Amino acid sequence: MLAVVYKGNGRVALEERPMPVIQNDKDAIIRVTLTTICSSDIHIKHGAVPRAVENTILGHEFVGEVIQTGNLVRRFKAGDRVAVNVETFCGECFYCKRGYVNNCTDPDGGWALGCRIDGGQAEYVRIPHADQGLTLIPEGVSDEQALFTGDILSTGYWGAELAEIKPADTVAVIGAGPTGLCTLMCAGLYGPSAVISIDVDDSRLELVRREGLADVTLNPGDTDVRQRILELTGGRGADAVLEAAGSQESFRMAWQIARPNAVVCVIAMYEQAQTLPLPDMYGKNLVFKTGGVDASHCEEIMRLIACGKLDTRCLITHRTSLDNAMEAYRIFEQKEDSVIKWAIKP
Amino acid sequence: MLAVVYKGNGRVALEERPMPVIQNDKDAIIRVTLTTICSSDIHIKHGAVPRAVENTILGHEFVGEVIQTGNLVRRFKAGDRVAVNVETFCGECFYCKRGYVNNCTDPDGGWALGCRIDGGQAEYVRIPHADQGLTLIPEGVSDEQALFTGDILSTGYWGAELAEIKPADTVAVIGAGPTGLCTLMCAGLYGPSAVISIDVDDSRLELVRREGLADVTLNPGDTDVRQRILELTGGRGADAVLEAAGSQESFRMAWQIARPNAVVCVIAMYEQAQTLPLPDMYGKNLVFKTGGVDASHCEEIMRLIACGKLDTRCLITHRTSLDNAMEAYRIFEQKEDSVIKWAIKP
Amino acid sequence: MLAVVYKGNGRVALEERPMPVIQNDKDAIIRVTLTTICSSDIHIKHGAVPRAVENTILGHEFVGEVIQTGNLVRRFKAGDRVAVNVETFCGECFYCKRGYVNNCTDPDGGWALGCRIDGGQAEYVRIPHADQGLTLIPEGVSDEQALFTGDILSTGYWGAELAEIKPADTVAVIGAGPTGLCTLMCAGLYGPSAVISIDVDDSRLELVRREGLADVTLNPGDTDVRQRILELTGGRGADAVLEAAGSQESFRMAWQIARPNAVVCVIAMYEQAQTLPLPDMYGKNLVFKTGGVDASHCEEIMRLIACGKLDTRCLITHRTSLDNAMEAYRIFEQKEDSVIKWAIKP
Amino acid sequence: MLAVVYKGNGRVALEERPMPVIQNDKDAIIRVTLTTICSSDIHIKHGAVPRAVENTILGHEFVGEVIQTGNLVRRFKAGDRVAVNVETFCGECFYCKRGYVNNCTDPDGGWALGCRIDGGQAEYVRIPHADQGLTLIPEGVSDEQALFTGDILSTGYWGAELAEIKPADTVAVIGAGPTGLCTLMCAGLYGPSAVISIDVDDSRLELVRREGLADVTLNPGDTDVRQRILELTGGRGADAVLEAAGSQESFRMAWQIARPNAVVCVIAMYEQAQTLPLPDMYGKNLVFKTGGVDASHCEEIMRLIACGKLDTRCLITHRTSLDNAMEAYRIFEQKEDSVIKWAIKP
Repeated sequence: MLAVVYKGNGRVALEERPMPVIQNDKDAIIRVTLTTICSSDIHIKHGAVPRAVENTILGHEFVGEVIQTGNLVRRFKAGDRVAVNVETFCGECFYCKRGYVNNCTDPDGGWALGCRIDGGQAEYVRIPHADQGLTLIPEGVSDEQALFTGDILSTGYWGAELAEIKPADTVAVIGAGPTGLCTLMCAGLYGPSAVISIDVDDSRLELVRREGLADVTLNPGDTDVRQRILELTGGRGADAVLEAAGSQESFRMAWQIARPNAVVCVIAMYEQAQTLPLPDMYGKNLVFKTGGVDASHCEEIMRLIACGKLDTRCLITHRTSLDNAMEAYRIFEQKEDSVIKWAIKP
Repeated sequence: MLAVVYKGNGRVALEERPMPVIQNDKDAIIRVTLTTICSSDIHIKHGAVPRAVENTILGHEFVGEVIQTGNLVRRFKAGDRVAVNVETFCGECFYCKRGYVNNCTDPDGGWALGCRIDGGQAEYVRIPHADQGLTLIPEGVSDEQALFTGDILSTGYWGAELAEIKPADTVAVIGAGPTGLCTLMCAGLYGPSAVISIDVDDSRLELVRREGLADVTLNPGDTDVRQRILELTGGRGADAVLEAAGSQESFRMAWQIARPNAVVCVIAMYEQAQTLPLPDMYGKNLVFKTGGVDASHCEEIMRLIACGKLDTRCLITHRTSLDNAMEAYRIFEQKEDSVIKWAIKP
Repeated sequence: MLAVVYKGNGRVALEERPMPVIQNDKDAIIRVTLTTICSSDIHIKHGAVPRAVENTILGHEFVGEVIQTGNLVRRFKAGDRVAVNVETFCGECFYCKRGYVNNCTDPDGGWALGCRIDGGQAEYVRIPHADQGLTLIPEGVSDEQALFTGDILSTGYWGAELAEIKPADTVAVIGAGPTGLCTLMCAGLYGPSAVISIDVDDSRLELVRREGLADVTLNPGDTDVRQRILELTGGRGADAVLEAAGSQESFRMAWQIARPNAVVCVIAMYEQAQTLPLPDMYGKNLVFKTGGVDASHCEEIMRLIACGKLDTRCLITHRTSLDNAMEAYRIFEQKEDSVIKWAIKP
Repeated sequence: MLAVVYKGNGRVALEERPMPVIQNDKDAIIRVTLTTICSSDIHIKHGAVPRAVENTILGHEFVGEVIQTGNLVRRFKAGDRVAVNVETFCGECFYCKRGYVNNCTDPDGGWALGCRIDGGQAEYVRIPHADQGLTLIPEGVSDEQALFTGDILSTGYWGAELAEIKPADTVAVIGAGPTGLCTLMCAGLYGPSAVISIDVDDSRLELVRREGLADVTLNPGDTDVRQRILELTGGRGADAVLEAAGSQESFRMAWQIARPNAVVCVIAMYEQAQTLPLPDMYGKNLVFKTGGVDASHCEEIMRLIACGKLDTRCLITHRTSLDNAMEAYRIFEQKEDSVIKWAIKP
């Protein structure tokens, strides 16, 4: 079968690989029906993800059809359409019992797919702990609607939950890339009186406005963002801040635009350490929440997709087939052609 | 000035009364610009509210303009347009510090307006603890938009908060009278995947559908409500139930349609004790939350009105002037003419 | 092997039964080393537990040694000393993922042991879902220390958690029987400034005082409990109430001694419906939490036993061997000889 | 009257000052009966607290007797013994209503005493917003018992609350200086299975052991703290970490000894920015809570002192009278003579 493989040294290649097989009674084999490229794949390509293993098939965000299940898989059967969770997890360990599936202590636990074990930019893929990591796609929900459930939509959902947003809050989301867009949508689930989207790219802010994902859009290139947010909030600052951009500037902006006693969720993946100027923020009493998604709410996300409250189809700006994946990588990495996300059909 | 007065013995009368005056440095005098009748006023008329005092001016749900303020009122000044809170509260006692303003220990604390002290079905009214009990109406928000802020909209908001609704939940609201309608709107702030409205009156359910306040409407007269909710929730039942009808049937329905481990909020005012069949519900592990509104979130409600996320204008089915108040009472009490709420201009 | 069997019609008998065998890959066989009688066993004997099946071996509170494990049991092996959870649960369903293991949807889910499937008043017992339902007893913790982990101590722990006790709170526990005593201990984990124990039996209150389980003990037979609690709490009432007695009087006392806005946990098993006088308690804004234990914190309980913060050995007032179980039942049911709990060695 | 005054330029002096007088109807005048020196006073002396104003009387941690009250003070009267809150706050603003009294928007709001307005290292002091900032000392509680209520004990209490400690958790507290000791005591209120005290000063750890404030004491000078904590926690790390030391080493240790998904409370006052190595901690999903005390629980603290659950008398290692304050400052600043805290009698 055809697959996109991480070759190390900044290289990714399209290769023929053998079909995956059941290795464990809790595995399932999935025929991938739609997959995509994530910015984490680019991080892997750049060698910035230490846990990534050479010659692994990439891809951790995809949907498909169950082809075969191990003897212990109880919740799924051949023919089921499913969204796949970025994380593999056992559901039994200390962390899983608390919903912290990212830190599952199973040997395969946490983010393994498309990183340490073969992922979903391929025609077929093996999914360990299938009962935990698959989510049934109900009738009436298309592959394109369900495509981002297991990764960036889970990230936005997790971030919005962490942010402790209350009705009538003003929520600021920094970054309107794929994760930022998902975060905007999920922040909107909590009844905020205003959602503010901040990005340096006007075309992304234009998308935000067109899709109605925020009440206010701000570009730091032409606006004093902090000043504007103070004006919008009676001088206080944002009640919750979600940082989905990942730069030094965005990190600093995050705590500066937060009102005292706000929650600042740092959901971007950073390539560098940041400075926490505790004396400058003394008395502001901020809470910083850091880390990577705990994708433990895929069932809820799917229900919200099914009822129309979450709709990420506007993120799909480009479509192609798997044999064209290398060109898709190039365009996605260079951010050409206003690409947000690819939908790639194996 | 003209005022609606509780005369005891099931009687309410329109009378001339003297203008209120400042009695305490924290008081404000408000010129009432729009007022309404609440079902609690009918309870008072019926003698079913023991704390109600004869010859008190009725009315605890209204908006107006500040005319005069006591020396210690800091947040408001003459000319401010304000919504008035049903409860008067000190902001300093054990309960107020925890947001439980309904149980304020101040002599005037809790629900006093239009019950123990003169209320707002009049041209003018004195408001004790004005800094706590008034909410500024921002420019662009009309009196009709703000009218229900301090009472039934606060009740719906409080109920929805108590219900611990999470994104993707299925929420059932029993009763689509004025409070039920506000509750439906507020439940929608929490990102539910489905809101179910239940009422015995088809015209009310028709209003719910027309205004888009619920995803499903059910009339127990022609539907097995419990069965239908089980079907809609994969056999589990509603994740949260808000009981705003106040009858024996609705109380029983509330716990029967709840899934195990759900929160059941009993926000209606009951005239009779209810039966809690603990053996029948053993193992269902329900949480019952009871009581009357803590109207401590009027600022948030006003922000949500201002941004368009809460809009109760559809509740106003009838309008008149204060000199016609007795006819308005009659129609409201008899539920004639599909009345939901009156807007009465003094 | 010897076992105590529920024979229906108010009868319990000591019988010879065959050894249990592994039926499912997730089962474990346990050699029971210490078991006890629970008041629920008496409820079963009385025919008051509809789910109980005739000819089932009784017993759902016991410790033992793992003898054999099914192929899928990963966390335990032969030789491990374990406490057994009253509930069998899958860990994967909607309820289990939320910690509501009492409502596990597995066919064996919830309280099955010693009720629908053979329990632990026997020499050996089969435990389904062993990875979920067993808790390792660490070295240094004796069988007597661990005996109540899976049932009444879990109940007290669950109740105390539900009660939302905050440091400096006044907590009232009604009932000083076995469950009430465990509840007192667990309430103490939350830093209350006062724990009040209420019971009609002075010898039980004497035990409470001797063991230092409460700061105040009250007997309704000779004290106006409500009045006394008001005096102790500046006129407010108890911040949290845990009802572990199960009578009509204790249910009424529970809401009467609670301060406004308190949580009232109804953790006793009631044989009759109760009256909820909503008009009388209107404005008191109480939260009632009902149901049966979710025994999902046995790991935490065992850590607290190991470090000495929970010690239930004082509950063991009587000891015997399994062949004397019928006499133990008689004394326990009649509450003779100031019995609190039996420790029975198979 | 005699008072300790901040003179700028690293200087503090004992001077004669005029008696304070009521300036506002909400003020009270307190006769100071016991006061102490806080490490923040040393920060002020060093010029490291920008908000500190020259010629202000120092002192923000003290107890006394009410001498006179403004017309609007309702909760206190002359003769009352009181502990004074480090923060002055209005109780009415956005932040106060949420318990964030440190960010009170009143002109006098937040930490003003002994910093921007005259404090309590003097014979008398004026307290603005007396109804909010005073806590009655009940009979039976001595001045020495109550001395730290309003500042460092509030800090420890606030930190322990922020840390979200659950029963059976392992809690690590870095720093066993005055604040660290208070934090250890308050952490113990939440039923942890183990409290670990970490400090570089063996004499302080000896005090911790002598007073039974921790289950384990670790000195980074002779122990690999991270390794030891992993051993004590089954390889996971501490469930909650409270950083009360304030150095670069202690900041790094804080996140390193935390288990994944832990809360790290940074309650020390830092003089320098810290590095947050997000790539190194990626996936660890830590929550950092930062800032200065919200002293909003003094009533609860006083109840816990009164019932014996909090006892900070062991912190008082030195006693003197106000005329000897300069020598007390010298010893405290140099950390001579194993000083923890001074009790100074005006």
